[in-house]
Amino acid sequence: MKAAVAGASGYAGGELLRLLLGHPVLEIGALTAGASAGDRLGAHQPHLPALAGEVLLATTPETLAGHDVVFLALPHGTSAEIAARLGDDTVVVDCGADFRLRDPGAWADFYGGAHAGTWPYGLPELPGAREALRGARRVAVPGCYPTAASLALFPAFAAGLAEPDVVVVAASGTSGAGRAPKPHLLGSEVIGSAAAYGAGGVHRHTPEIEQNLAAVAGRPVRVSFTPVLVPMSRGILATCTAPAAPGLTAAHLRETYQAAVEREPFLRLLPEGTWPATAMTLGANTAAIQVALDERAGRVIAVAAIDNLTKGTAGGAVQSANLALGLAEELGLPTTGVAP
Amino acid sequence: MKAAVAGASGYAGGELLRLLLGHPVLEIGALTAGASAGDRLGAHQPHLPALAGEVLLATTPETLAGHDVVFLALPHGTSAEIAARLGDDTVVVDCGADFRLRDPGAWADFYGGAHAGTWPYGLPELPGAREALRGARRVAVPGCYPTAASLALFPAFAAGLAEPDVVVVAASGTSGAGRAPKPHLLGSEVIGSAAAYGAGGVHRHTPEIEQNLAAVAGRPVRVSFTPVLVPMSRGILATCTAPAAPGLTAAHLRETYQAAVEREPFLRLLPEGTWPATAMTLGANTAAIQVALDERAGRVIAVAAIDNLTKGTAGGAVQSANLALGLAEELGLPTTGVAP
Amino acid sequence: MKAAVAGASGYAGGELLRLLLGHPVLEIGALTAGASAGDRLGAHQPHLPALAGEVLLATTPETLAGHDVVFLALPHGTSAEIAARLGDDTVVVDCGADFRLRDPGAWADFYGGAHAGTWPYGLPELPGAREALRGARRVAVPGCYPTAASLALFPAFAAGLAEPDVVVVAASGTSGAGRAPKPHLLGSEVIGSAAAYGAGGVHRHTPEIEQNLAAVAGRPVRVSFTPVLVPMSRGILATCTAPAAPGLTAAHLRETYQAAVEREPFLRLLPEGTWPATAMTLGANTAAIQVALDERAGRVIAVAAIDNLTKGTAGGAVQSANLALGLAEELGLPTTGVAP
Amino acid sequence: MKAAVAGASGYAGGELLRLLLGHPVLEIGALTAGASAGDRLGAHQPHLPALAGEVLLATTPETLAGHDVVFLALPHGTSAEIAARLGDDTVVVDCGADFRLRDPGAWADFYGGAHAGTWPYGLPELPGAREALRGARRVAVPGCYPTAASLALFPAFAAGLAEPDVVVVAASGTSGAGRAPKPHLLGSEVIGSAAAYGAGGVHRHTPEIEQNLAAVAGRPVRVSFTPVLVPMSRGILATCTAPAAPGLTAAHLRETYQAAVEREPFLRLLPEGTWPATAMTLGANTAAIQVALDERAGRVIAVAAIDNLTKGTAGGAVQSANLALGLAEELGLPTTGVAP
Repeated sequence: MKAAVAGASGYAGGELLRLLLGHPVLEIGALTAGASAGDRLGAHQPHLPALAGEVLLATTPETLAGHDVVFLALPHGTSAEIAARLGDDTVVVDCGADFRLRDPGAWADFYGGAHAGTWPYGLPELPGAREALRGARRVAVPGCYPTAASLALFPAFAAGLAEPDVVVVAASGTSGAGRAPKPHLLGSEVIGSAAAYGAGGVHRHTPEIEQNLAAVAGRPVRVSFTPVLVPMSRGILATCTAPAAPGLTAAHLRETYQAAVEREPFLRLLPEGTWPATAMTLGANTAAIQVALDERAGRVIAVAAIDNLTKGTAGGAVQSANLALGLAEELGLPTTGVAP
Repeated sequence: MKAAVAGASGYAGGELLRLLLGHPVLEIGALTAGASAGDRLGAHQPHLPALAGEVLLATTPETLAGHDVVFLALPHGTSAEIAARLGDDTVVVDCGADFRLRDPGAWADFYGGAHAGTWPYGLPELPGAREALRGARRVAVPGCYPTAASLALFPAFAAGLAEPDVVVVAASGTSGAGRAPKPHLLGSEVIGSAAAYGAGGVHRHTPEIEQNLAAVAGRPVRVSFTPVLVPMSRGILATCTAPAAPGLTAAHLRETYQAAVEREPFLRLLPEGTWPATAMTLGANTAAIQVALDERAGRVIAVAAIDNLTKGTAGGAVQSANLALGLAEELGLPTTGVAP
Repeated sequence: MKAAVAGASGYAGGELLRLLLGHPVLEIGALTAGASAGDRLGAHQPHLPALAGEVLLATTPETLAGHDVVFLALPHGTSAEIAARLGDDTVVVDCGADFRLRDPGAWADFYGGAHAGTWPYGLPELPGAREALRGARRVAVPGCYPTAASLALFPAFAAGLAEPDVVVVAASGTSGAGRAPKPHLLGSEVIGSAAAYGAGGVHRHTPEIEQNLAAVAGRPVRVSFTPVLVPMSRGILATCTAPAAPGLTAAHLRETYQAAVEREPFLRLLPEGTWPATAMTLGANTAAIQVALDERAGRVIAVAAIDNLTKGTAGGAVQSANLALGLAEELGLPTTGVAP
Repeated sequence: MKAAVAGASGYAGGELLRLLLGHPVLEIGALTAGASAGDRLGAHQPHLPALAGEVLLATTPETLAGHDVVFLALPHGTSAEIAARLGDDTVVVDCGADFRLRDPGAWADFYGGAHAGTWPYGLPELPGAREALRGARRVAVPGCYPTAASLALFPAFAAGLAEPDVVVVAASGTSGAGRAPKPHLLGSEVIGSAAAYGAGGVHRHTPEIEQNLAAVAGRPVRVSFTPVLVPMSRGILATCTAPAAPGLTAAHLRETYQAAVEREPFLRLLPEGTWPATAMTLGANTAAIQVALDERAGRVIAVAAIDNLTKGTAGGAVQSANLALGLAEELGLPTTGVAP
């Protein structure tokens, strides 16, 4: 089976290629880019020597045609047109935001403009999601923050153990902001500094987290979300809390999480007392999760660590593509991290 | 006036000396240490060439006697005995936790053992605190996390703008954990990783944050607190949120904060839309604060950035010492940070 | 085939396990440790979930017996006794220094004490080394700095293009210093700082670099070596220079390097004008190399980037073990890095 | 006395302002910028709250007129015209390269185009330089790398202790590359990576180092210079080596360095065996220096650590301005670093 990667010169594209190089079934086909079309890949992804000589094509429906799966790692707003031209014999996996939200009102509030539609949501661990992804022709890859926050909290909300008033504060490495050079992403700015941004209810991942948790809870969930940029290139650590349901015990909470993760190939509930660190998951498609009942504050605290480029973007994309293509879900996806 | 520093070979001690070197009134007297007694300071604090040749004395009541102010940067549990031997003609400023809490029950729950007592609390910006510090003979320097969280939230609670159900998630650099070598603090472990720890309601700074906010709110406040270690040596970024009081408007919230900081020499409310970064405060005794009303989630979001070693420890200590000694509060305390 | 790892709780041990988990022929057998014996591996290597439940055994000849290959990632001075007890039916691959040097005088000068002996040297890229490693029963894995410096310079010295007066300055991440907690390796110390150490001709890797270059040059080579600790966990960037041989041209220099790397699976000569960065090789067993003739200064400049834990230690160990065991040299060794 | 800063929105400009805020004689006058003219300074330098409300003017001779001293922190090639318009009643201190080199041929080779001229060179520690700076109307601030390398080696060359075949490899933080956003300077690229650049004799600071060392040696000196970008925002660690002069002893080398630094307010020769780290000098105008004789390799090894923005740019600029203005050389220049 053949896979194309559109946006191969960026960070998400590079991570897709890293994973595809180790995938036993998917072969790498066309690599496309925008302004970098015509360059050799080695000029942009020097960590991928096996592909260094590949020439980047322009991102067009034509260059992407003829693949079993096309991964789109493109700016928001560009997927719809390309997908429309690719036809249903191609699985299209969109790493952008265009098709994640179900509620056009939320789309309008947070992104503005017309809502492109909704595709099957590529977080197989959420109840019902895996089934919808099997054989799907289109997949919307979740945002990196919603991946971390949803994995941290879905067991609690699926089991009714938490009240729908959620606070998420997530520390993120810089690669989530992409490769376009912006002053606040310079090494000199981010090294030695932790910086909040998009706080106060305006970050676009907010309605996506709400959508995920509401779906599992079966009722509306409101989320206060604050992202924090910290001096590392990869990783998200999402600290999530919600009021505990009346009568919840620590033992029941833990059993619920244990049951939720036990058949999941990429979720790990850490031993009691061990809290997640992003280094546990660097380069892996795993989420390291811990949960506790803070009886004093009456709250469930759940923390998830992921690699934003792997499980949070490219790994999640490959995982969903595997399902869509009828392959084993784990194919080509490392569970071993690179540490220290 | 003469100042002694006990624990001069550690990070808090080094920062005290850095500030005292620029203090126009306080002269540096005895420098003492535990296991490092007998060493020259230069072996431990090579960034302080002016003091490189000073010999570290043993930390005893005798070596510390005869100073106008003694700064204790010692392990918890060691301050009481030394302070008892110093007498009331010496101002004792304790950077440790022993005398911070008022509630012996909270002490027992979080620290264990007998409660040493309560000293005037060294966060002059809290309502009433400055008055209690003027002329005080003993000062308990706040914990670094409580400094950041309390400065972020006190205006809201003092004005009744937030409900007493607080969530604090704070990213911290590694220097807050001190200089004793522990495996999880190795560069190889902390570089490239964000790691939660002490989550679930067990971190010792939790009751201290509650104490501060309850005092300004005039009613009990419960706090869920999660610290996160991030790859930088200095800085705390505390993201704090609580349900908004009914009817609160964004304009009223901002005016309240504006009024709370306007006469404070070390507090800065950032321009609207700019969120704090720890680099804004590196090496300075300032707190950079921003607040917003998240109307969707019905929450106040307040974020404060400080340098954990300056405003969060040594700078706060000098600020309180200035008040205790009858000096101008700002003496020797930089408001200019070192960036990038 | 079965592989044991002695020192499985350290950084080199963890990297060996990461690679062995992806090795198609070698199965992981006994995992042993010193002070951590009895612990589960997950407590020390949380990035390796597949092995989290494995119990660390004590490092003894008995626990290590019965394996096809035993990797020793132990403190210096401990390999000889264990190797002596394992017999020649086991391949012993020592990541320590004990058997690297051929000259007992150099051993005495730089390590002191009795010289344990000399084993086949595990850098297959050096002329003649590969042949000596095929079927070897004992392998001395090179030091991380000598790996980088030797790979940067061996083509020049093998072809007589440089004079034997070498300067090597190598920036290294902190993981090369191991996991034992020492004050100068704390995150607070290494973050934000570049620090020279072991300068002035005293670093133990100096005679090893000289030995390697002298062997390929066929005459003595003297090396001035300065290591520099920089704020990253992995990676070595070795900048190496030597006077150019008379009449050397840039074209001939480049052709020589091109020829030297062209059949090497793990060496890459970067495109002209692109200089190595350690991120190109993170997690991979590759060395990224660049060379130039500085005609103004009359010098060859060669720079190599490696991952000190992969090509510089554990990857090099597996590469040599593959040769010793009669397997394909590349088995289980990634050439794709993890970036950014 | 009044000082203007042109280029106040950049890193060098910000550091100049940080230092000027603590200068007891110089008052801050006009702040000017290019594309950022019209903005408030706080939008660009949020670590300088005292100046947050200042409006950036356009960089023109008119806005800069009427100051006792004008600091130019501008792109190369722009200083000459402005300086020509300011007249000799204003001291002009240029942080750019335009007036550093004396040899028009070296200028043409490394910068290209017409040579603007040569101004007194702002490294007072070099023999003769201080005298030339006293009362000067124009000052060329040295490059950051030449500052570090020249301070490391001038004592050896002034005393004839080293042969004129120098190798310099210098690790630098990212702020030296300035604030213009470029892809290779993104946090995601520089974090976790050490990268050589400008190697092979092409870096523009090469002829400047040669010029400085040749002047003190009294004969031509050739330099091989390789800069290495490492993951920190500030600091340069220059490792410098040259063949030892015949008969040189370690004791004589040390005495020579001791004598060279003993009256210098900003140079520190570290205790024997302690090698420089950039953290020793962060935010300070100091250089931490160590030297050794590597008898085995027959080489002098000298290492200097500086803060590239302080002693390497803005601090050096203020130090020279003090001399030019007839003030005490040390005014407003910290010798205390910020660490950890």
